[in-house]
Amino acid sequence: MNGAESLVHTLLKSDVDVCFANPGTSEMHFVAALDRIPGMRCVLGLQENIVTGMADGYFRMAGKPAATLLHCGPGLANGLANLHNARRARSGVVNVVGDQATYHRQHDAPLTADTEGWARGASHWVRTSMSAAQVGADAAVAVQAARTAPGQVATLVLPADTAWNEGAVPAEALPVPTPSVADPLVVRSIARVLREKKNVLILLGGAALRGEAQALAWRAASAHGAKLLSEVSNARMTRGQGAYPLERVPYPTDAALQAMSWVEHLVLVNARAPVGFFAYPEKRGLHYPENCEIHVLSRFEQDAEASLRALVEELGAPAVAMPDPGPRPEAARGAPTPEGLARTVAALMPEGAIIADESVSFGRGFFKETFAAPAHDWLQLTGGAIGCGMPLATGAAIGAGGKRRVINLQADGSGMYTLQALWTQAREKLPVTTIVLANRKYQILLGEYQNVGANPGPTAMGMLDLGNPTLDWVKLANGMGVEAAQATSLEQVADLLAQSCAQQAPFLIELVI
Amino acid sequence: MNGAESLVHTLLKSDVDVCFANPGTSEMHFVAALDRIPGMRCVLGLQENIVTGMADGYFRMAGKPAATLLHCGPGLANGLANLHNARRARSGVVNVVGDQATYHRQHDAPLTADTEGWARGASHWVRTSMSAAQVGADAAVAVQAARTAPGQVATLVLPADTAWNEGAVPAEALPVPTPSVADPLVVRSIARVLREKKNVLILLGGAALRGEAQALAWRAASAHGAKLLSEVSNARMTRGQGAYPLERVPYPTDAALQAMSWVEHLVLVNARAPVGFFAYPEKRGLHYPENCEIHVLSRFEQDAEASLRALVEELGAPAVAMPDPGPRPEAARGAPTPEGLARTVAALMPEGAIIADESVSFGRGFFKETFAAPAHDWLQLTGGAIGCGMPLATGAAIGAGGKRRVINLQADGSGMYTLQALWTQAREKLPVTTIVLANRKYQILLGEYQNVGANPGPTAMGMLDLGNPTLDWVKLANGMGVEAAQATSLEQVADLLAQSCAQQAPFLIELVI
Repeated sequence: MNGAESLVHTLLKSDVDVCFANPGTSEMHFVAALDRIPGMRCVLGLQENIVTGMADGYFRMAGKPAATLLHCGPGLANGLANLHNARRARSGVVNVVGDQATYHRQHDAPLTADTEGWARGASHWVRTSMSAAQVGADAAVAVQAARTAPGQVATLVLPADTAWNEGAVPAEALPVPTPSVADPLVVRSIARVLREKKNVLILLGGAALRGEAQALAWRAASAHGAKLLSEVSNARMTRGQGAYPLERVPYPTDAALQAMSWVEHLVLVNARAPVGFFAYPEKRGLHYPENCEIHVLSRFEQDAEASLRALVEELGAPAVAMPDPGPRPEAARGAPTPEGLARTVAALMPEGAIIADESVSFGRGFFKETFAAPAHDWLQLTGGAIGCGMPLATGAAIGAGGKRRVINLQADGSGMYTLQALWTQAREKLPVTTIVLANRKYQILLGEYQNVGANPGPTAMGMLDLGNPTLDWVKLANGMGVEAAQATSLEQVADLLAQSCAQQAPFLIELVI
Repeated sequence: MNGAESLVHTLLKSDVDVCFANPGTSEMHFVAALDRIPGMRCVLGLQENIVTGMADGYFRMAGKPAATLLHCGPGLANGLANLHNARRARSGVVNVVGDQATYHRQHDAPLTADTEGWARGASHWVRTSMSAAQVGADAAVAVQAARTAPGQVATLVLPADTAWNEGAVPAEALPVPTPSVADPLVVRSIARVLREKKNVLILLGGAALRGEAQALAWRAASAHGAKLLSEVSNARMTRGQGAYPLERVPYPTDAALQAMSWVEHLVLVNARAPVGFFAYPEKRGLHYPENCEIHVLSRFEQDAEASLRALVEELGAPAVAMPDPGPRPEAARGAPTPEGLARTVAALMPEGAIIADESVSFGRGFFKETFAAPAHDWLQLTGGAIGCGMPLATGAAIGAGGKRRVINLQADGSGMYTLQALWTQAREKLPVTTIVLANRKYQILLGEYQNVGANPGPTAMGMLDLGNPTLDWVKLANGMGVEAAQATSLEQVADLLAQSCAQQAPFLIELVI
């Protein structure tokens, strides 16, 4: 057995059975092994940031890592931005990066690069196999690292001769550590804060945003009048009917400091204390008051649900109904507004929909309008590296087994970063509806520019405006095999959205806003 | 004066007056400074690999570096692959990467990444300014590094507070070292090789491929019957009427070893001894015979033309006419073939055209058929990181002042990596004709796969075939504001090419092959 075959067998033994790929010459033995050994679903992306973004979306829905197959240092580099987002989402990903043969590296051939060096900034775990015999064992450790809670980016670099040489052996799956539960002393101390202190905020992140954990958090909070919020950017949140109507810490610094101004005690459940995406002159970078005390119930790698259950028990907190979000919104009419679009999506999304949200500035008000939608999952851009939405939507559709409608709320400027994902949606016939929010500018940056002091002149507008020439998203989507239509009113959005949800195929709506 | 203003003044003092940009929040003070201070042409790219690829193309034609403006570590990461190509082309580029404020970095905000770490693998020079007062001086050193012969990638990371703080001062341009000429003892020893040895090959790279240097190389070679070849991948080569009809070392290992099999003495002029892009089992990785002796006339950072002139003088080599390439080819007819396409391009390209070549497998025979074309420059993918062609063509058009027609011979799979460059071509009204070679597969990889041993099964084809769904390049180009048409015959290519060359605007021809 050669090294490539041992890799495929090892991944399958460790329950990694989807591979997002853009291979090159140094990966041909892996492609051949994938061809010979049944069991791995291979999905092609036309650029590596599509590949890595799909792996992120897949993990968020499937709850287990996929592999990626990437070509040398530059191929990995193309996928780093979405690996950065995956790392911030704490998604598990197993990157397999083919590279120069061990003995060829010395010659500094044109594609030779510092593959490990580039991998490190986006990976929790990096290793280069040095012989075919080692590939199986290294791959098993890579999957173990990727599966370590809540999920990690593991990058395994495989020189070409480790793929083609014989004498390799597949490795069995390695045990994955069970996440720990908050220490009883910690639970007791947090319970005392909730009982005895005023102005307590429980901030939820990661696994605390899912299903039962939300209910337990609400029960703990309501026992003594604490409030709940989530972090600003979240990998996956259970939302809609049956979920807690959870708001996020706002993105803009002023709004965040305002929303947090009353907080004297901040209890973190798998969350980090909020900080600004960026610093601004004369503004506070930590998004909580200076005298606020921070208490950690559970860290991101711990078991949020069990820790919250322990807290509820310690408090003796009585069962409590979820707040009533009211009736499901009706589709809105007229010119597109953020609220109207959110209500329209809430009115029409099927039960169990998945929202892939890279709406950037336009989408800041979407949460409030969708509390009463049917039960759904909401995935956000987590690392701030734009170009996440379309690949994320694509991978999420695959991670959910192709059975749930994905609605990608997509800013146009960010969408242009990774539009190639539409082709994979068409190729795999995925149930993804993309709504491109076409304001034809980098709107978030225009706002930031005005904060800097002035109205933009022609040079600045040349870097912030996308309107010259106008991007035609219908043609772009059609060019990659995805059906599409333009909408200028919310009625049109409603019609197109309803129509697209009835088909097992991708569709793109260009909403001119 | 704030740090951002000092940066712009310093770049202008150092004759850097074009900035390829995709800014974000942390760069808003730079955008504002560019808006206030006249003199810098700012060109927006819709993804950072477009931005860095344009800077590479710009340098190859303008012979001086442009700046790039990039957003944090992930923005830089998106542009690393084309920086890798620029590094291999030895192009000078000044990257300006905005980043977290110095005092905000500790908070590990979502976009925080190891910016310097990522920069290193693609840069010759990396520095982070730590105060506004330092920005001007650091920028001057960055430009000096970028201008050091033949050209280097310099990356300057600027935390946001170094941009907005006052107390900055612009710096004067720093002197750039003059490239050295081959040592007289070296020249004498190479002259002896040429006079006394048989089977001598002079391999040209870098500056040796330009204008007068080629003529001197041919004069030195013809004095005693040596042969001339160029490296396999070249940043820029003077070609067509008046130039030496120079062939390259072939790309495939077997063909390269065959072409080099007779060589006993290899004389390097600003070139490296050839190595395979990749190793293959049981094949030699060095693309020259085992007993071949290597002699270095000049290293890549030296003055090729002066070194060759010294050699010609040492040899007393008589003036000699360039080989006659014969009459200009006529446009070919019928079904597209590599040779027919090359002849058609040779027949129709305007004098002074620039060929941006990312034709990959289809283009291997283009050189021979274009020797008798009008004088032109030929730019290649240098680092093997695909996705170079369209940005390179865009930047080259700007580097040539918008006055020379650029013809981008573009493989379809590679083209999909960075198709967003078409939008910049439309926005800037650049004279670029893109010919997409639409074979609808990763043809080079299909060849590599068959080398591995077998015909691809469905899983392998799923990773090598681009035909499902078919990419429609006419729609993709139109979607970004570029006029386009499909061609299935060489007559159609000829008509469309002639038509496009008559307009000061971009055009795309999808050639179905």
